[in-house]
Amino acid sequence: MKKIKIAQFGLGPIGLEALKLAATQPWVEIIGAVDKDPSKAGRPLTEVTGLAQLDGLKVSANLEELFRDTQPEVILHTAGSSAAISLEQMRPALELGVSVASTCEELIFPALKAGHLVKEYDGLCRHTGARMVATGVNPGFVMDLLPITMTAVSRAVDSILVERVVNASTRRQPLQAKIGSGQSPEEFRAKLQSGRAGHAGLRESLALLAHAMGWPMDSITEVGEPMIAQHDIKTNFFTVAKGQACGIHQRAVGLSGGVEKIVLDIKMYLDAENPCDHIVIRGRPPLDVTVNGGVAGDDATVASLINIVPRLLSAQPGLHLPIDLPVPRWGFNT
Amino acid sequence: MKKIKIAQFGLGPIGLEALKLAATQPWVEIIGAVDKDPSKAGRPLTEVTGLAQLDGLKVSANLEELFRDTQPEVILHTAGSSAAISLEQMRPALELGVSVASTCEELIFPALKAGHLVKEYDGLCRHTGARMVATGVNPGFVMDLLPITMTAVSRAVDSILVERVVNASTRRQPLQAKIGSGQSPEEFRAKLQSGRAGHAGLRESLALLAHAMGWPMDSITEVGEPMIAQHDIKTNFFTVAKGQACGIHQRAVGLSGGVEKIVLDIKMYLDAENPCDHIVIRGRPPLDVTVNGGVAGDDATVASLINIVPRLLSAQPGLHLPIDLPVPRWGFNT
Repeated sequence: MKKIKIAQFGLGPIGLEALKLAATQPWVEIIGAVDKDPSKAGRPLTEVTGLAQLDGLKVSANLEELFRDTQPEVILHTAGSSAAISLEQMRPALELGVSVASTCEELIFPALKAGHLVKEYDGLCRHTGARMVATGVNPGFVMDLLPITMTAVSRAVDSILVERVVNASTRRQPLQAKIGSGQSPEEFRAKLQSGRAGHAGLRESLALLAHAMGWPMDSITEVGEPMIAQHDIKTNFFTVAKGQACGIHQRAVGLSGGVEKIVLDIKMYLDAENPCDHIVIRGRPPLDVTVNGGVAGDDATVASLINIVPRLLSAQPGLHLPIDLPVPRWGFNT
Repeated sequence: MKKIKIAQFGLGPIGLEALKLAATQPWVEIIGAVDKDPSKAGRPLTEVTGLAQLDGLKVSANLEELFRDTQPEVILHTAGSSAAISLEQMRPALELGVSVASTCEELIFPALKAGHLVKEYDGLCRHTGARMVATGVNPGFVMDLLPITMTAVSRAVDSILVERVVNASTRRQPLQAKIGSGQSPEEFRAKLQSGRAGHAGLRESLALLAHAMGWPMDSITEVGEPMIAQHDIKTNFFTVAKGQACGIHQRAVGLSGGVEKIVLDIKMYLDAENPCDHIVIRGRPPLDVTVNGGVAGDDATVASLINIVPRLLSAQPGLHLPIDLPVPRWGFNT
């Protein structure tokens, strides 16, 4: 089997997990990694990852340094939520025709926040032969790609509702921190309302759904509120007193022709009962789908990133939406 | 909007429904239909379909006759379960570079029953620019494409189980007949075991799953048994006495390395309680998905056929598996 040469950009928790998962795939050859953090750049990749099989590779400080030594076919990009910044970060790769799979939330539907860059980067990719796409669980799967896939069997679609409940008690520390665990409700509410806190990508999921259905949106509105602890909660990382914030509740609503066509509702909080993803498509036939227990976060995010690579390489050059690649799935077989 | 010129091949119940649904799509222009049945061939399409807007079109007896008058971009093929026969039926279209979307069950994974024809027809399509794919609900979605899509978020997949329960009481007469309603259990069991009765495509779903996961199969076995009426049942079409057959239970098992990797289990019977589709993927993360109420049959089958057309036309020429086209979805927007 011809292996696909992969380099990792960003060695935070998700990047490290992605690299570790990639290292177990028989179709992947890891040839390098990039992280600007001075505590990582320049060090052997074996040390940073704990993976002995990456012997001989070191962490490059930037793409230019990586490309002096080697050239991957695909870069796994796990270094931020901003579409504009992620595109700029990846420009040196795209200019060389190197493809990029990213977990950048805004890139799930880049036209929303970086519309002025889409044509330019799509053109760049087509010119050099690079392909770029973003993937993930949320955004990228449970609240967008999966409901879109369900409409494959719809004669008519009237509206789409997706509800996701995540039990944050089972998740890693940064997620528990991100959702305001232990903060005062007023303080965290202010952060949510000013955009300094909250889950990224909900609007992108909604915009991707709207695009896929061909529904022009009058407006996409999003509100966020803290979830309040109803009793004292203790996790591996936080102790939260009754009355403090213990999570977030975000809801995005898309109006088209004055009608609520898309509603996405997510609750991520400590000790959440009955975590699940629930998709309701009103139409003909009506569709009601439950992912019992929900799609677990980090494992699945990393998996979606590795799994998209074979589909990405089979696509035409360009900056792609995840729904325009072949049906996503585990593994290499195409 | 540039419309896609479509002709319908096969004017049975599914073909007629497909044509009616196609006629409501703003991106479709219906330009003809084919049926060899002398009671339909030669007659005005308005008469056969009841659709006044098809004024001026008549039913052709075969493709050659259709092509003397007009040339569609896509043919909707709803005329049988056999891959070999369906490919042969569509050869005149493929030779002209006309693409084909089919409900032929065996074409969901043609390598299983018509392996000797796949290379030839794929080559023909590539030569003429035609694209061909099969679609449907089962096979084509709930027991194959949907579970395959779920594995997009899997780090590892150990085994896949899909259970489908269909309440046949709510379905059309031919389906109630097909599942043995009112027949003696012994008689219907003999028909099931000799292949003269039963649901087509379960093996194809399993083979498609195995292919997508890259799992070589030691064997694919399928067993079928009648469901027995536990009480007298009356539908719009049948009266079934307690003890008579009232449905089918089919189960396909795929072994790989001596291990049960894929199990597909379908029950279609009269007065079935709690119809649903249930997908269990053992792996990391484990995934458990329920389509509450199940994906309804005929509406959804026809929808999947119309909805695949824009994706089919965006693909490269060739004989495709449904999982190798872009993410399936409602409507035209690509």
